[in-house]
Amino acid sequence: MIAAKYKDMLSAKSVIRELSEYATARGKEIGYENVFDYSLGNPSVPAPEKFKKAMIDLLEKCDPMAIHGYSPSLGISSVKEKVAESLNKRFSMSYTYKHIFMTAGAAGAIAHAVRAVTVPGDEVLTFAPFFPEYHPYIDLSGAVLKVVPANTESFQINFEYFEKMLTEKVMAVLVNTPNNPSGIVYTKETLEKLARIMTKKSEEYGHDIYLISDEPYREIVFAGVEDVYVSKVYANTISCYSYSKSLSIPGERIGYIAVNPACREAEAIVNMCGQISRGIGHNCPSSIVQLAVAEVLYETSDLSVYETNMNILYNELTDLGFTCVKPGGTFYIFPKAMEEDAKIFCQKAKNYDLILVPGDSFGCPGYFRMAYCIDTDKVERSLTALRKFVESEYR
Amino acid sequence: MIAAKYKDMLSAKSVIRELSEYATARGKEIGYENVFDYSLGNPSVPAPEKFKKAMIDLLEKCDPMAIHGYSPSLGISSVKEKVAESLNKRFSMSYTYKHIFMTAGAAGAIAHAVRAVTVPGDEVLTFAPFFPEYHPYIDLSGAVLKVVPANTESFQINFEYFEKMLTEKVMAVLVNTPNNPSGIVYTKETLEKLARIMTKKSEEYGHDIYLISDEPYREIVFAGVEDVYVSKVYANTISCYSYSKSLSIPGERIGYIAVNPACREAEAIVNMCGQISRGIGHNCPSSIVQLAVAEVLYETSDLSVYETNMNILYNELTDLGFTCVKPGGTFYIFPKAMEEDAKIFCQKAKNYDLILVPGDSFGCPGYFRMAYCIDTDKVERSLTALRKFVESEYR
Repeated sequence: MIAAKYKDMLSAKSVIRELSEYATARGKEIGYENVFDYSLGNPSVPAPEKFKKAMIDLLEKCDPMAIHGYSPSLGISSVKEKVAESLNKRFSMSYTYKHIFMTAGAAGAIAHAVRAVTVPGDEVLTFAPFFPEYHPYIDLSGAVLKVVPANTESFQINFEYFEKMLTEKVMAVLVNTPNNPSGIVYTKETLEKLARIMTKKSEEYGHDIYLISDEPYREIVFAGVEDVYVSKVYANTISCYSYSKSLSIPGERIGYIAVNPACREAEAIVNMCGQISRGIGHNCPSSIVQLAVAEVLYETSDLSVYETNMNILYNELTDLGFTCVKPGGTFYIFPKAMEEDAKIFCQKAKNYDLILVPGDSFGCPGYFRMAYCIDTDKVERSLTALRKFVESEYR
Repeated sequence: MIAAKYKDMLSAKSVIRELSEYATARGKEIGYENVFDYSLGNPSVPAPEKFKKAMIDLLEKCDPMAIHGYSPSLGISSVKEKVAESLNKRFSMSYTYKHIFMTAGAAGAIAHAVRAVTVPGDEVLTFAPFFPEYHPYIDLSGAVLKVVPANTESFQINFEYFEKMLTEKVMAVLVNTPNNPSGIVYTKETLEKLARIMTKKSEEYGHDIYLISDEPYREIVFAGVEDVYVSKVYANTISCYSYSKSLSIPGERIGYIAVNPACREAEAIVNMCGQISRGIGHNCPSSIVQLAVAEVLYETSDLSVYETNMNILYNELTDLGFTCVKPGGTFYIFPKAMEEDAKIFCQKAKNYDLILVPGDSFGCPGYFRMAYCIDTDKVERSLTALRKFVESEYR
């Protein structure tokens, strides 16, 4: 018997993917350079030369059995040691390799973390606006995702709703800062308040509440924005990282879980991730990619283009009269649509070859996301289309 | 709350892994070259030069955004097309890219296939002796693994038991030929009889019974042994392949599912695998590894050493009086132990620095596995230890 739950998922196509497919099709008609495709969060800058060099060096200088051989199920120990060391240096933590589990990007990290600290029926809270793929990661684990409504003033946390929704059934809270889709970076105050409430409620309920921190944009923080390492403010934190954005290697599917050493059962959680992985037959990211990444832990791609693009777009959008919170990082911006239904707004924008994503699937109707991980030249050329769109439709 | 089911798994350590760890520790005492470590199924020959060249060419000649960018969730289409074409050429099938799903090795393939064609509570049958990792792949999907007892005469299928156990609750049958641990290749007669019974029972029960075919050793078949492509004999077949053994790249975690085009809902099954993958956050093997493998689809490592080793061992074992079915492929041999309890037998063998794995965890007590994917020189040196062991303990 075909498993209905997966088959049913096929009919619910991803809005982002549909828009991206539309952009590709439209590009075939008018030239892709003329489609202002803000749909996909796909890095637009190449991987660092040093990553390429690390890969080639491994291939040319090392025993193929060593670079392509089985990786231990938790990841290659020497790689995990270097990851721990780099985090310790940067954030004054005290990780060892025993706190690190190598994953297929942040996606794999979150899916494993949720399975480790919840059982089916438990609730996981996250905050709107949120990355829609949280649904499959959590729904298919058997846990239940509940979404705290957005604080649209600042896209920091809406604590009033959070406190109401943080019931005894909640075993984990999932945060994403810098945030996809809002581009917002949580302030130190926000994170400390979050930690205080979670600590208080953990005591009140007599069980731990884990903080799962989704951090693929950790390296993309703009000038003047304070960047707080989430795990510093709350002991029971599981950090989920991906090299997809910082090294522009999303196809390589590599990242890690770093469990705060002060977290209850920290090492057990890492070891459990290995068992969860066994169940899905996943068993670690590519061995050569693990080894190559370990050589470039202090490198990133040239990420400055994202801040350049953000400033151009933010200035134009506010100038055009959009309500818009200025992003502190990532390559997303999340303005308010110029009519109530953002789906209609984005539909109309397509007539100007502007591909914008409605905020509905991010849990924040009435807003829209622009992924500005595209060439600056294209961002600049899109401004004319944007102005024409607004002036024709909303003046 | 920590998920007890994963935590409990931590206490049940893998026998194979424990033996391998023992071998490593013993190696530190007496030199690893003096430990006759037959524990692990880790390829002992390097990846083909052409694989290395394909990787380096991609890194040196291609746009990093193209080789490290996001792969579609079902795998890179051009790669899937080439895989389909290579299977069609070789086995006269009619796959298209729509029947292929790229996976993290055969492990990922089996875990996805089981989730696609069963729902929790359904039964999956396999045949002793079997690869013990089938347990986590199936147990954690919620389906129930039932093991048909071995036909120890030939290690072909014990059809008497199979027919009894093929009840209405069985939704999938999992075969592994060439087989780990027996080294046996199922004959055409065996597979045709299996197909006949499954077809008859599918009709009788009014539901499909899928055949999941685990084929990581497909390329390691010895002289004179007929090699049948399982999917040729039964339409509802999902073939699960890995490049781990044929290209000696187990750490790269790459393989695929190929769903027989005549299989009911063939394309839906492939698409469902993408949804299953979303749930665990896995999302495809490494993009560069997918692209590199597509360049060497007609290559293998030099696999001849395995047949050389098999012949040396088989001759010595039978000469020493072991009951032993001659392997037709793989790099395993599965003789009968010289006392009833193979665990005690293997424990005693350790005193001669022979690392043998008891058959119990393969569902076949009283037998033991030797993984002869080691240097031929070491196999030859091990014969003295083997003779000494048998003569001292069992004469």
